[in-house]
Amino acid sequence: MGFQDAKNMKFKVKLLGIEAGGKPIIVMDDENASLLGIHSSDRVEIAYKKENIIAIVNVAGDFPKKTLGIYEEVRTRLKVQSGEEVNVRPAERPESLRYIRDKIFGQRLQGPEIKMIVMDVVERHLSDVELASFVTALSIRGTNMDEAEALSRAMVETGQTLDFGKGPILDKHSIGGVPGDKATLLVVPIVSAAGFTIPKTSSRAITSPAGTADRIEVLCNVDLALEEIRAVVEKTNACLAWGGALDLAPADDLFIQVEYPLSIDPLLLPSIMSKKKAIGADYVVIDIPVGRGAKIQTIEDSQALARDFIELGRRLGMQVHCAVTFGEQPIGYAIGPALEAREALSTLMGEGPVDLIDKATSLAGILFEMMGVNSGKQKANELLRSGKAEKKLREIIAAQGGDPNIKPDDIKTGDKTAKIVSEEDGSVQLINNRAIAQIAREAGAPKDKAAGVLLRRKIGDEVAKGDALFEIYAKSKQKLDAAISLAESLKPMGTAQRFGEKMLMDRIPTTILHEKPFVLER
Amino acid sequence: MGFQDAKNMKFKVKLLGIEAGGKPIIVMDDENASLLGIHSSDRVEIAYKKENIIAIVNVAGDFPKKTLGIYEEVRTRLKVQSGEEVNVRPAERPESLRYIRDKIFGQRLQGPEIKMIVMDVVERHLSDVELASFVTALSIRGTNMDEAEALSRAMVETGQTLDFGKGPILDKHSIGGVPGDKATLLVVPIVSAAGFTIPKTSSRAITSPAGTADRIEVLCNVDLALEEIRAVVEKTNACLAWGGALDLAPADDLFIQVEYPLSIDPLLLPSIMSKKKAIGADYVVIDIPVGRGAKIQTIEDSQALARDFIELGRRLGMQVHCAVTFGEQPIGYAIGPALEAREALSTLMGEGPVDLIDKATSLAGILFEMMGVNSGKQKANELLRSGKAEKKLREIIAAQGGDPNIKPDDIKTGDKTAKIVSEEDGSVQLINNRAIAQIAREAGAPKDKAAGVLLRRKIGDEVAKGDALFEIYAKSKQKLDAAISLAESLKPMGTAQRFGEKMLMDRIPTTILHEKPFVLER
Repeated sequence: MGFQDAKNMKFKVKLLGIEAGGKPIIVMDDENASLLGIHSSDRVEIAYKKENIIAIVNVAGDFPKKTLGIYEEVRTRLKVQSGEEVNVRPAERPESLRYIRDKIFGQRLQGPEIKMIVMDVVERHLSDVELASFVTALSIRGTNMDEAEALSRAMVETGQTLDFGKGPILDKHSIGGVPGDKATLLVVPIVSAAGFTIPKTSSRAITSPAGTADRIEVLCNVDLALEEIRAVVEKTNACLAWGGALDLAPADDLFIQVEYPLSIDPLLLPSIMSKKKAIGADYVVIDIPVGRGAKIQTIEDSQALARDFIELGRRLGMQVHCAVTFGEQPIGYAIGPALEAREALSTLMGEGPVDLIDKATSLAGILFEMMGVNSGKQKANELLRSGKAEKKLREIIAAQGGDPNIKPDDIKTGDKTAKIVSEEDGSVQLINNRAIAQIAREAGAPKDKAAGVLLRRKIGDEVAKGDALFEIYAKSKQKLDAAISLAESLKPMGTAQRFGEKMLMDRIPTTILHEKPFVLER
Repeated sequence: MGFQDAKNMKFKVKLLGIEAGGKPIIVMDDENASLLGIHSSDRVEIAYKKENIIAIVNVAGDFPKKTLGIYEEVRTRLKVQSGEEVNVRPAERPESLRYIRDKIFGQRLQGPEIKMIVMDVVERHLSDVELASFVTALSIRGTNMDEAEALSRAMVETGQTLDFGKGPILDKHSIGGVPGDKATLLVVPIVSAAGFTIPKTSSRAITSPAGTADRIEVLCNVDLALEEIRAVVEKTNACLAWGGALDLAPADDLFIQVEYPLSIDPLLLPSIMSKKKAIGADYVVIDIPVGRGAKIQTIEDSQALARDFIELGRRLGMQVHCAVTFGEQPIGYAIGPALEAREALSTLMGEGPVDLIDKATSLAGILFEMMGVNSGKQKANELLRSGKAEKKLREIIAAQGGDPNIKPDDIKTGDKTAKIVSEEDGSVQLINNRAIAQIAREAGAPKDKAAGVLLRRKIGDEVAKGDALFEIYAKSKQKLDAAISLAESLKPMGTAQRFGEKMLMDRIPTTILHEKPFVLER
């Protein structure tokens, strides 16, 4: 197909044979770019046979004339071969760019404007520069509830949605930030054991040592297609699936790609709520861990965020309750996919840490009470203690292709281990969440599922000089040594002779060995 | 050279053979990226023999394992061949990223922080995402005078500077936005004819139909190296050179690359003033065109901007005066490189439009008065009318390799022409600067030097039905037709029976055929 326009030009295709990270980018020589009136980052429309796409131009000084360098993303959409001829013309700037500028200049955006931005994000019509500018403007100008609602709706509408044909649908989400939080592995079986439907999708770790999907993958397959999820939910009332490949609110994954290098997270609310809406949730409990070292530091901030979640849920047709939870230390003792899966399984089998049990039953209990059950937490506890939740998890594992008879000891953890011991008698006064997470990552988690950290003490526990504070698990000696040396420099557990007596928490200036990492987990 | 660190990996080089627009980008497969703990947009340090550079990673799903895809920018700096082995390890995030985040969160930046950002911009350690975020944050948060000063100094210090070994150095700059502004071609010879030194560097058009460098290039060579500039200035007390290849304040060119797609210009002041400082200017006159269709719309805004220029100049050790000029219509009659060069030459030879003469002599006159001359404008007029300025321009043309005897008629303009005529009797009430600029660009300017627009009437001129309002010049029938059809839809000149009697200027909603273009010229 050609264009009926004056300003178009024929180019010969040169396949570059590499990906551009999902972006539809083409390379063009500067001379012909100039003839077309095209600068780097401008958009062109490319026509080949019946296909017609918008791509972003990378102008190169030293590129063969009248040749169009084509990355894999463009090749697969145009279905074009090397040497073939395509028609190229300048494309209009997307209308959404005007709304991004409006946001830069402080205007509130309307629903249709936000929809157009999100559509152009998903269709890849916006460059990294434009996307980064939008996310930065959102971060500085903020979003009001109308904008958050419009963003959520647009993110749902530009992706897949699920309808299980039976209701109500329950869901649970944590805003994250606390290592070792395997509560989902307990909440889902407890809730579904009570007969409710909870089709849980989770993410993998981005900056943490384990995401829920990484933990579950130790027990069974998590990479399920939509039809497989439907079948598992049909059979068990639940699922524990990875959400990444389901195309639920796909705009979010593209926003994350620019939020991550900038370490800003202005889309937290619409990002989470759009994924809940896309899966068809009716009742949602959201866990907001609070404290030094968590994402939210104060009770006041957590309450403000909770009110926003509840209001945004109401507008999107979901009933939301929030749980503000203690986030000053890891949940349970295990950090790292395999260690956490083992701890979760043991807990469902009757032997688990008090904090994990309390958190999981509290969250499940809130969902039960939202469904009209009295004493929700008590009911959750009964389902846990009676073994019904364990039985349900094994059903889910079987439905997702795992071994339903798996025992905690069957789960392999790294065989290179080291103990980090206390240098004094006393008790543990604080645990640095982020330092623990970094050490577990240095040991190889989440890529090495068997790697991680196992705490031997938690806050308030007594310890004698030479007693283990925590253990590091790794697959190789090299990674173990790297994690040990990081542990020695970060000193993630602070001890005092008596709890609360050591007042100096940090000294500035000090040798900052590792910058505070940005936590981007949803 | 290798690294003494645990976390590094050997890769085999694969040369991609294409440029990445100046950015040091490498491509890596997702599996090894993950092992290195690298996400897309993260930075790595690459070591090969004695070379060692920082590059930005593009993670590709389908790229050969343990292979490093290398763009031309990285190849030329590493001096590496295909198949050779390089060492790769994660690089620390640049410290400047923290200051970019500080700016996002509304902090004022200190001098050393700004210096670090600008250094990382020039060294290409920041990705497009980070650069776009910084420029967006500057646009929203604004810069105070301390920051503008620090930005200017950092931009000077990260580039070349010129020292002519004789003083004082005079300079002239327009913030741009008005088509047909060839005043520089008169101001420079007038000022140097008086014995003052004015080594003028100019830019090419980015979004306009002609930059000063494009106009001069019709008469002589503008692409001079630093040594050539020195020789021309030695001989003539002046030069008319293109600044683009001189590496004066190179950060600015990189900022422009993200400002252009976003249509924001938060670095206007430091950008202009750093270039003046780099060339060693002591006395500077800055032209601020004002009016509907110019960059600055009101006298109040122009005064505020002028005060900032003066104060920033003072801090940088330059004396600055500003001229607020009438910017509601093009300067003179000619728009487009060749048409404008011809008009400027004719004007120096004694036959030129009143507004161009008035503007050029006013600006030169201000510089004269800054140097202690009484009645500066009168002196400028004398130098113009006596032919001394013409003689000086011909000296400069000769020194820059052009024909010193060139006559206006020697300058070729496009031989495909069309007249756009008035549809009624009356007088011209307004001229839309941006529409005129777009029509000239559509006709081929600035790439086709001979293309452009020649006005036949200006504001207030009487016109009869069928009289020419303006002519379009193009090199090809195709471009001429495109420009005619754009002219017909934009109607860039408004006529009324009597000036001021036609009150309706625009109707909304109306068919918006062409969006208002963003003017980015410095």
